[in-house]
Amino acid sequence: MSAATALSGVVPPVCTPLSPDGEVDTRSLVRLVDHLIEGGVDGLFVLGSTSEVAYLPDGHRRVVLETVVGHVAGQVPVLAGAIDMTTLRVLDHAREAVRLGADGIVVTAPYYTRTHPAEIEGHFRSVASGAGVPVYAYDLPVSVHSKLGGDLLLDLGAEGVLAGVKDSSGDEGAFRSILLGRRERAGLDSFSVLTGGELTVDCALWMGADGVVPGLGNVDPHGYARLYRLARAGDWEAARVEQERLLRLFQFVTVGGTRMGGSSSALGAFKAALYLRGVIAHPTTAVPQIPLDEDEIATVGKHLSAADLL
Amino acid sequence: MSAATALSGVVPPVCTPLSPDGEVDTRSLVRLVDHLIEGGVDGLFVLGSTSEVAYLPDGHRRVVLETVVGHVAGQVPVLAGAIDMTTLRVLDHAREAVRLGADGIVVTAPYYTRTHPAEIEGHFRSVASGAGVPVYAYDLPVSVHSKLGGDLLLDLGAEGVLAGVKDSSGDEGAFRSILLGRRERAGLDSFSVLTGGELTVDCALWMGADGVVPGLGNVDPHGYARLYRLARAGDWEAARVEQERLLRLFQFVTVGGTRMGGSSSALGAFKAALYLRGVIAHPTTAVPQIPLDEDEIATVGKHLSAADLL
Amino acid sequence: MSAATALSGVVPPVCTPLSPDGEVDTRSLVRLVDHLIEGGVDGLFVLGSTSEVAYLPDGHRRVVLETVVGHVAGQVPVLAGAIDMTTLRVLDHAREAVRLGADGIVVTAPYYTRTHPAEIEGHFRSVASGAGVPVYAYDLPVSVHSKLGGDLLLDLGAEGVLAGVKDSSGDEGAFRSILLGRRERAGLDSFSVLTGGELTVDCALWMGADGVVPGLGNVDPHGYARLYRLARAGDWEAARVEQERLLRLFQFVTVGGTRMGGSSSALGAFKAALYLRGVIAHPTTAVPQIPLDEDEIATVGKHLSAADLL
Amino acid sequence: MSAATALSGVVPPVCTPLSPDGEVDTRSLVRLVDHLIEGGVDGLFVLGSTSEVAYLPDGHRRVVLETVVGHVAGQVPVLAGAIDMTTLRVLDHAREAVRLGADGIVVTAPYYTRTHPAEIEGHFRSVASGAGVPVYAYDLPVSVHSKLGGDLLLDLGAEGVLAGVKDSSGDEGAFRSILLGRRERAGLDSFSVLTGGELTVDCALWMGADGVVPGLGNVDPHGYARLYRLARAGDWEAARVEQERLLRLFQFVTVGGTRMGGSSSALGAFKAALYLRGVIAHPTTAVPQIPLDEDEIATVGKHLSAADLL
Repeated sequence: MSAATALSGVVPPVCTPLSPDGEVDTRSLVRLVDHLIEGGVDGLFVLGSTSEVAYLPDGHRRVVLETVVGHVAGQVPVLAGAIDMTTLRVLDHAREAVRLGADGIVVTAPYYTRTHPAEIEGHFRSVASGAGVPVYAYDLPVSVHSKLGGDLLLDLGAEGVLAGVKDSSGDEGAFRSILLGRRERAGLDSFSVLTGGELTVDCALWMGADGVVPGLGNVDPHGYARLYRLARAGDWEAARVEQERLLRLFQFVTVGGTRMGGSSSALGAFKAALYLRGVIAHPTTAVPQIPLDEDEIATVGKHLSAADLL
Repeated sequence: MSAATALSGVVPPVCTPLSPDGEVDTRSLVRLVDHLIEGGVDGLFVLGSTSEVAYLPDGHRRVVLETVVGHVAGQVPVLAGAIDMTTLRVLDHAREAVRLGADGIVVTAPYYTRTHPAEIEGHFRSVASGAGVPVYAYDLPVSVHSKLGGDLLLDLGAEGVLAGVKDSSGDEGAFRSILLGRRERAGLDSFSVLTGGELTVDCALWMGADGVVPGLGNVDPHGYARLYRLARAGDWEAARVEQERLLRLFQFVTVGGTRMGGSSSALGAFKAALYLRGVIAHPTTAVPQIPLDEDEIATVGKHLSAADLL
Repeated sequence: MSAATALSGVVPPVCTPLSPDGEVDTRSLVRLVDHLIEGGVDGLFVLGSTSEVAYLPDGHRRVVLETVVGHVAGQVPVLAGAIDMTTLRVLDHAREAVRLGADGIVVTAPYYTRTHPAEIEGHFRSVASGAGVPVYAYDLPVSVHSKLGGDLLLDLGAEGVLAGVKDSSGDEGAFRSILLGRRERAGLDSFSVLTGGELTVDCALWMGADGVVPGLGNVDPHGYARLYRLARAGDWEAARVEQERLLRLFQFVTVGGTRMGGSSSALGAFKAALYLRGVIAHPTTAVPQIPLDEDEIATVGKHLSAADLL
Repeated sequence: MSAATALSGVVPPVCTPLSPDGEVDTRSLVRLVDHLIEGGVDGLFVLGSTSEVAYLPDGHRRVVLETVVGHVAGQVPVLAGAIDMTTLRVLDHAREAVRLGADGIVVTAPYYTRTHPAEIEGHFRSVASGAGVPVYAYDLPVSVHSKLGGDLLLDLGAEGVLAGVKDSSGDEGAFRSILLGRRERAGLDSFSVLTGGELTVDCALWMGADGVVPGLGNVDPHGYARLYRLARAGDWEAARVEQERLLRLFQFVTVGGTRMGGSSSALGAFKAALYLRGVIAHPTTAVPQIPLDEDEIATVGKHLSAADLL
């Protein structure tokens, strides 16, 4: 992944398999990596939100990175989330990720604290200047409660501060403005624009996105790889059919209902699906998330069957 | 601070003085601790929001704790914020805080991730069971985007899971419900209820609060200590006059206006005031906050003069 | 209520009794007004949030105003909410209220649309210039999703644009800043500062507020009148005891739990209490609110008994 | 527009031209209607957010409806927003709209008050049962602060309660789930699914939407009509080029910057553009919006020139 070509394709945020006692289950993680690469993905994003990064202590983060980078051995690029509240904390994670061989890092706006556009800009500049690898902005208002400005992203891209953006804002109009702005400005050829959305990937690619970072890609990497290849080949009708199948499957993220938070339910469903498909050994999610019960796991199984994945 | 008596009085969240290159300025920190203790405070809360904990990497956090615990040497209790996104990360900070001698830790609800009351309860239970020192809940919706339920706090207090709460929610009705609930239920005598609000401390004490955790107490610990003693002595009129003086002083937190975030402005004003009062050597705030300029620092000085603090 | 003296005391937002078919039950409304005046209130605020103004069509609003103004016949001032989205719509309500004899109107910031401080200022100026009676600002972020600035309120008060503010923001620090600002600036002697909070009325009066607009005052006007008189007489201890009794009673607002919205539950509890106390003929709330069921109404009754109101 | 066929195509929310003194400028409104119909639109939506409905008193609303329904004379269907806080108020507007000849009404969830899914359902049921014309749900979280559930919409559609939805939520995944759900369930053939988004219309149509309700369609109805026809003809490449031209034009909505609210700026830009194109006589927006100044209007002109519209 040189600075001269934009990262593209399917880059799933890799789930972090855990043993029942909450440790990183590295054997399952290796199997998951194989499952993803065999499924045709173009890169891996570890330590993202879908990886339960918010739940993983630094020791777990380290084990994940070592395991994945070591096992991937350069077959595909590995991005690492350097997810923390502000600049110096992010830089600590970034340095560790670089030391362990990550090809790039993914960084949100500051959170927990009350921030400001000028501070967000300074944050990305400082992180990029200290990181030593390409930095991707992670636009995730649902977690950090601020939205990255499109002009800021393009300015920082043109200057070489940012290597790209993973847009999980859900603001498709703003996303498209970035795509158009990139096309019309100089110096942005290698600036990668990826969508974090899982349900309108055909549209995102149609609008000009380089790739997709789908949490659901853990469960069905073949599906997202197929969708991506179909779109690239211009077979948009087939891409749409594939996307619609994946959207139906995605409905299982609400399996936990109102007795738990949205994270517990969605990540629980992803992990239950990987468990039922035989990829990981345990459906365990990190504390303090509420685990799915047997009925809920059975419901996940029904969704898998309906999607021809069991 | 035994489990048998509730923490009470003035427990300021201690600012973290920084050198111009962003390191912890331990000489200034020691002077600040002396300034606070000499000012009559009853405890210290390090690594809270006012301490810029969101901006401090683990190394800085460690230096702060070592410096403060070492210098205080048991004169007053020292609470330490164990501020991170979820349980296992909080526990890492908690263990480090205990190792370094903190008398208690302060913990928020999970953030960054989408959470749920049942998960918040599990979070506090797990943290308390692993921490080994008293755990204080930190109710801070402006940062973590969820509000702690009063019944949950009282239940966990009665069970001995929580030693108290620092309420920075700004919801005075809910705060008072907790105070009444504590009075009417068994087993809550040593459950400490502290307000994080700086501007209605006389009222909070009037309603039955045990103490206050005022950011502004860095700048004028004598003022808050005086206010607390007056209230305890039943001289509410004089307490009110003191509170009103402090409220006028507090207006300086907006000195940075709209060119920076609220954190940069408020923490910048606190640190500028400490610098102008000769307590700390530099008004530096942590990146990526925007520093106050000379005019803004001069404005802080005018507020100090008006409050008879220069 | 002349422009020369600030409105003060207990000014409850009057519930709007409805018949089972959703019409204004004017006989019950008259009884409620008598209940309130006999309870010792100093003014009435009709067509506020507690009056279900958001649910009342213009015809209902008219009947309410006619009934209340006619029955009160000048015994106490009657304020009317002119609650609508923007200036011209508010002015229509304001003119109708004036025509029907309201002594003042109560007006929020614009809502539904995306607004701005400069637009909020223009809104109040236009409404005041067209209304022909004193205008009170209604600070209600929970409904209108913006907060009124304290400096704006004081500026508009000093200019005579606003006659006062009903602060239901829950931001006690900002509220106190207004109270201090009023004391320190010229021309604000008749600017009335009222709290919409029901649970810290002793504190609000202690800080200098002129009065209170308590929804719970429908159920127990004697209690709030007593609390107010005690505070004015300087018997703060007794005022506190009274406030604590009222706070315990207030817990019934959550009787509807999670099967309905907060408005259905709180207004349902108020009306059930008035029904059980024999003041109004039906506990009916306006569509599309969910009615309390028999068990929930029985629970309201238990709270009334505990507060010696049955 | 019979109940047997779903409303489809381009249905712009019609701006409300005002004279400098704030009255409805009916001559300009008639010209605007002609401009839209000549531009090839398939229906008109009056009294929506883009029509400044939040700013229009009932008298203005009436004039708008009379003028548009009278002038259109059945050439295309006319939908009318019945925009108000809760059921009975909405029904008043609905009856008036029906009396004046609207072919359908458009209704949001309750707002200003704290609501609940069960109350939202009851709201739509009551409105539909009383309205006498097809009811379209208007999903507009930015204004009403709650999101309509996809299952609720489909259930109410299958029952015949709702005739369709205008989705301005910006949640493209949820939107697509509705489109898939409609395809897979019986009884929804005439349930119309329209997007309120202006910048990804090609994608919405690609996903199966029936049509679009674009505010920007006031300024360039020919563009949206062209885009719609191209998509229907399967010429997606040309549709995309057209959408991208319109997206560039749309950038002018931020012309007012930070000195005004988003509504003032966007509606100001739309009206300035219509004024510069000679469609309406005055760029006046309703109070208390801040008017664009000469420089800002000139900037709008530059955007029009760049889009070949001047």
